[in-house]
Amino acid sequence: MLGNFSYHNPTKLYFGENSLEYLKDELKNYGKNVLLVYGGGSIKKSGLYDDIVTILKDCGKNIAEIAGVMPNPTVEKLNEGVEIARKNKSDFILAVGGGSVCDYSKALSVSIHCNDDPWQKYYIRFEEPECEIVPVGCVLTMAGTGSEMNGGAVITNHESKLKIGHVFGDDVMPKFSILNPKYTMTLPKYQMIAGIYDIFNHICEQYFSGEDDNTSDYISEGLMRSLIHSSGIAVNDPQNYEARSNIMWTATWALNTLVAKGKSTDWMVHMLGQAVGAYTDATHGMTLAAVSLPYYRHIMPYGIKKFARFAVEVWGISKDGKSCEQLANEGLLAMEKWMKEIGLVMNITDLGVTSDMIEGIADATLILGGGYKVLNREEIIGILKSSM
Amino acid sequence: MLGNFSYHNPTKLYFGENSLEYLKDELKNYGKNVLLVYGGGSIKKSGLYDDIVTILKDCGKNIAEIAGVMPNPTVEKLNEGVEIARKNKSDFILAVGGGSVCDYSKALSVSIHCNDDPWQKYYIRFEEPECEIVPVGCVLTMAGTGSEMNGGAVITNHESKLKIGHVFGDDVMPKFSILNPKYTMTLPKYQMIAGIYDIFNHICEQYFSGEDDNTSDYISEGLMRSLIHSSGIAVNDPQNYEARSNIMWTATWALNTLVAKGKSTDWMVHMLGQAVGAYTDATHGMTLAAVSLPYYRHIMPYGIKKFARFAVEVWGISKDGKSCEQLANEGLLAMEKWMKEIGLVMNITDLGVTSDMIEGIADATLILGGGYKVLNREEIIGILKSSM
Repeated sequence: MLGNFSYHNPTKLYFGENSLEYLKDELKNYGKNVLLVYGGGSIKKSGLYDDIVTILKDCGKNIAEIAGVMPNPTVEKLNEGVEIARKNKSDFILAVGGGSVCDYSKALSVSIHCNDDPWQKYYIRFEEPECEIVPVGCVLTMAGTGSEMNGGAVITNHESKLKIGHVFGDDVMPKFSILNPKYTMTLPKYQMIAGIYDIFNHICEQYFSGEDDNTSDYISEGLMRSLIHSSGIAVNDPQNYEARSNIMWTATWALNTLVAKGKSTDWMVHMLGQAVGAYTDATHGMTLAAVSLPYYRHIMPYGIKKFARFAVEVWGISKDGKSCEQLANEGLLAMEKWMKEIGLVMNITDLGVTSDMIEGIADATLILGGGYKVLNREEIIGILKSSM
Repeated sequence: MLGNFSYHNPTKLYFGENSLEYLKDELKNYGKNVLLVYGGGSIKKSGLYDDIVTILKDCGKNIAEIAGVMPNPTVEKLNEGVEIARKNKSDFILAVGGGSVCDYSKALSVSIHCNDDPWQKYYIRFEEPECEIVPVGCVLTMAGTGSEMNGGAVITNHESKLKIGHVFGDDVMPKFSILNPKYTMTLPKYQMIAGIYDIFNHICEQYFSGEDDNTSDYISEGLMRSLIHSSGIAVNDPQNYEARSNIMWTATWALNTLVAKGKSTDWMVHMLGQAVGAYTDATHGMTLAAVSLPYYRHIMPYGIKKFARFAVEVWGISKDGKSCEQLANEGLLAMEKWMKEIGLVMNITDLGVTSDMIEGIADATLILGGGYKVLNREEIIGILKSSM
């Protein structure tokens, strides 16, 4: 049953090959001191950096920069950004990159005017911002996290071996995001594939929870079917614009709150994957892929009906006289086949996890309510060992 | 392929049995002179009128009223509303009712401060508003039109026998909408069923266009599957909250611009249905149902691949060795079976159309680009005759 909820997503999206044309108009609505945030510099190779700096200068903006935002943005980098933003009186943040750059920019937006320690306040005590929030706009270069249309911001603390996400409210969501599928085509294939699984798992985390048969589940099935279709094309032909554009659009809707509306959600694969990430610094999507099947096979008996539905509605497996258990198993086998076909990392050993890390990763795994089963420490260790 | 587009939907939604609780908070953001708009008075029988007036008074609002908004709001009623709003210096419109009341309120919102004749400006010349737009909030009592989260506003001119919709932009969309499925449960079954088909056809109008295989089509298929599932439950058990809540949520997403993103659309069933409505004043959803199958059977050969996909993905018809044509036909037969099962009006004769009206209805039918085929007058007459 659809429970009580509210829905509001103020982010304005510009999608397509011509979408950067709208940046100039949007910039008119925001401050003069722009903080340009980006990652390892691939946007300089691609020429996107120059295009954006030209637009910012044409708009008469003062530009300060934060470069080198890493795949798993650290608390040290966050604190460094706060210094730079304060020194430059930044009143607008333009994030140019993938999910990490967008996440980092949102974390920064609630930290610049925060009098408390941001890590302690937002990631340990999970408090909401009371301070002024600096508006953020995004130019997305990777499809996966959905960060372009949500309030999520994951930050990693290597010292305490924690990778934690805080989902902030409407007012932290990007004011606008520019989505040009062409920008995602310069990504290494490994990153593209990791992004595809991140998208798929975002949908799974919201789908595998509750016995309901509600509209959100039907929309999730549509998104999964679209992603499975497009990913098959993209892995063989990464320059296929149609496939890359559908993957990019699916990523946005997989994690902008819509498909979670009116239902419970899970998110334990993300908790496990993030703990693996905190220990290995491995690519986010691959950490999710590596723990997914052991996790889903473990919880399957507790949500057997939904797993059977997944087999039929998402993978098109015929019901004919099969038991729920049989269908559920066939569904996860179809998912495993697809995961291997697109080239995902299927175990945490390949991501650098060694047996001596298992206890620590288990301790670093945040235990949530769980879609069908609240895990205990023994179960987490069991799932991690099966993921080796 | 997903073309270039922008997406922005600022409407805030409150969904569920407790959603009216949020009205008080929302009212704080708007003016003191509230114009309360409603229909035939069913909200007085249900007690909703009293609940809302109490909340408005508690918030210290001045209340002016426009009652008796009819199922197909007329241009005379619009002009009458403009007078009342001006006299009362209304600075906020609260629409309490179904799609007609919401549509009417949006048309009013762009007419109150308009120095031109609203019908001529918005419905004949299709111009955009330059004047101040009075903000609108909705409390929805019927699921179907999607008017609660879009900029559409259909107005009927009986004198010139025209029923025309203008889809306005973001700034005309409701600021908030309160969606309580319980409010839809007092509707006569005929109205519930008409609403269900209105929802289904909204999706069809956006789905049956283009050969693309994009995310929007997959989301549309999910919405159609959800609606088919819930409508089967609701027609047998109209008090089933789960079914009614899923129908209500599906209605919102069927026509809030999402599933049209990046693709072309059709809307000819609405053009035909609205012309029938202008002549008969019949219930909107029933006019769509009565012309749909003759229209879709007529255009099927021009979009055969999509109609075959519709059969497989929406109706679960097995492909096994069937031709596109065979699958496409089976899909429309499955749709016809479902339409009859839920009790829709299947011909325009039952809606009061007589043969002497056909020529006039054809003349009143706005000819759009068409999803797969631009119709000519002869074809329109043919479709109308097949709908008798």
